[in-house]
Amino acid sequence: MANPVLVEVTRGNLVESRHRGMVVVVDGDGKVVFSAGDIDAGVFPRSACKAMQALPLIESGAADAHLFGNRELALACSSHSGEPAHARLAGTMLAAAGVDESVLECGAHWSFEQPVLINQARVLERPTALHNNCSGKHAGFICAACHTGKDLEGYVRYEHPVQAEIRGVMESLTGAALAVDNCGVDGCSIPTYAVPLKSLAHGFAKMATGVGLAPVRAKAARRLIDACMAEPFFVAGTNRACTRLMEAAPGRIFAKTGAEGVFCAAIPEQGIAIALKCEDGTTRAAESMVAATLARFFREEPAVHAALMAMANRSMSNWNGIHVGDIRVTDAFAA
Amino acid sequence: MANPVLVEVTRGNLVESRHRGMVVVVDGDGKVVFSAGDIDAGVFPRSACKAMQALPLIESGAADAHLFGNRELALACSSHSGEPAHARLAGTMLAAAGVDESVLECGAHWSFEQPVLINQARVLERPTALHNNCSGKHAGFICAACHTGKDLEGYVRYEHPVQAEIRGVMESLTGAALAVDNCGVDGCSIPTYAVPLKSLAHGFAKMATGVGLAPVRAKAARRLIDACMAEPFFVAGTNRACTRLMEAAPGRIFAKTGAEGVFCAAIPEQGIAIALKCEDGTTRAAESMVAATLARFFREEPAVHAALMAMANRSMSNWNGIHVGDIRVTDAFAA
Repeated sequence: MANPVLVEVTRGNLVESRHRGMVVVVDGDGKVVFSAGDIDAGVFPRSACKAMQALPLIESGAADAHLFGNRELALACSSHSGEPAHARLAGTMLAAAGVDESVLECGAHWSFEQPVLINQARVLERPTALHNNCSGKHAGFICAACHTGKDLEGYVRYEHPVQAEIRGVMESLTGAALAVDNCGVDGCSIPTYAVPLKSLAHGFAKMATGVGLAPVRAKAARRLIDACMAEPFFVAGTNRACTRLMEAAPGRIFAKTGAEGVFCAAIPEQGIAIALKCEDGTTRAAESMVAATLARFFREEPAVHAALMAMANRSMSNWNGIHVGDIRVTDAFAA
Repeated sequence: MANPVLVEVTRGNLVESRHRGMVVVVDGDGKVVFSAGDIDAGVFPRSACKAMQALPLIESGAADAHLFGNRELALACSSHSGEPAHARLAGTMLAAAGVDESVLECGAHWSFEQPVLINQARVLERPTALHNNCSGKHAGFICAACHTGKDLEGYVRYEHPVQAEIRGVMESLTGAALAVDNCGVDGCSIPTYAVPLKSLAHGFAKMATGVGLAPVRAKAARRLIDACMAEPFFVAGTNRACTRLMEAAPGRIFAKTGAEGVFCAAIPEQGIAIALKCEDGTTRAAESMVAATLARFFREEPAVHAALMAMANRSMSNWNGIHVGDIRVTDAFAA
């Protein structure tokens, strides 16, 4: 059966485009609190699981050894926009490990954000690996690897101890088997593993609640989530959805996007986590979906609810500032 | 019933994202030669119908009065990338009408193409209306309006004689009624009208074949299509899909994209035209769909067929140049 239409894009009085997808909300025990679409389908979490991938940075002792605070931990979980503060902090993290950007194996790219790209084009001949949206995550990998005496060469590869360790962490959190047959290569060259959407949500619910986790991991997980909530700019950047979602209820919402229309989120105080994917991989729709799903859990708080719904249902204007249509969630979120 | 999945995006050995859509191919009589999905659904053609909107430029006599050649006519039908040659020619067309860019009501925006945007950012403080992807179309409107003594003020508005004339042309070509209730505002501020996908295809089939058109219109329509096929760079730009599709069989394929996953195309020598829409509005999928649909009609010509299928099914690499997956059309195109 086809996944339901979760987001509509209107023009004039008509619906111009439709986005289907699947959403699941679970608690720490993995109980489904809300869902739409095929939540058992395998989904590549892409960058939405960076907070899981950052656990070794803390568990290895590297974060403490380098006195990393919320900003560094948030950047380790980030898909940042390559703004100067992001690139600079990634460089500082590498310096703490005694290395520099030459060890990064993520590749380089211009910012995906137009205003940032324009500034970059004016001051840079070309972007460096520090500007890669994943440079903070890679800096975290490298700090953990250096701290535990691992050879850095090829740290992005499936068989490297860095990735084997992350695989183990993610298998433990999601309960899903990760292996070559459900593995793809991510934009930054590390492995990404397709897991059932529900399992992905459960992994984040465990991180947010500590349910079922050893004390050391529970503490590390909560520290990463708290760091992201405390420094939302370092998780994404100016005007980015992750940043704005977390700013809508400071210290209470964790949210992280991934390529191809994925979003993971958590509301630790309510003991729940969200995983969703827009079937067609479109970010605009995934952003509406996560905002509307989060809003369901803030119905008693009109200001937060309104801020989230304003991200779920938003107006689109053209180059002259004329209102041309809207992006809006469907009744699937009303139930 | 849901529209069928027409394009899949893979990562590793798995499908990561799916694009649904509808495609129709008709001949000059409106007979359906191939279809998938709901071809009676109303679709905003957006920029895919610019060649229809350019008919008054020729029929008014303005194009001949200004000695416009294939490049000017192609630019009038274009969604260009804002490369220097595009912006310059739009300015030249306006100068022929005795006006300048200050009369353009399309608004300004940076190029959607990253390499062009980077160059723009390095030489421009901000883009002008000449850089708007629709500046050639607007220059065509303005040339026709000036030539026929129309007041330019507000030429983008529904009730202005320029738009009323275009509405009449499009109603005549598509056979669909265009009015306020199926009207939206396009990115460049002019009206865009939702019409059944099949009617849109039929309109282009009439343009490509002349079937059912008065001789003057048939000649003007063919002149525009021939101009686009002769100057594909001026219809889009460097590395753009429209340009590359038309270059795959020089002088034999007409192709024009529109926002939100629309494509119109024609093969005049075979007397057919294509209209399609990716349900979710994604360009990458619409490009695969149109290439695969066109390829069906070049099965006897291996080189053309291969060039088109290489656009339909294409490899994706990450920042390090590693192959991570593919964009590919589904069996819906095999029948």
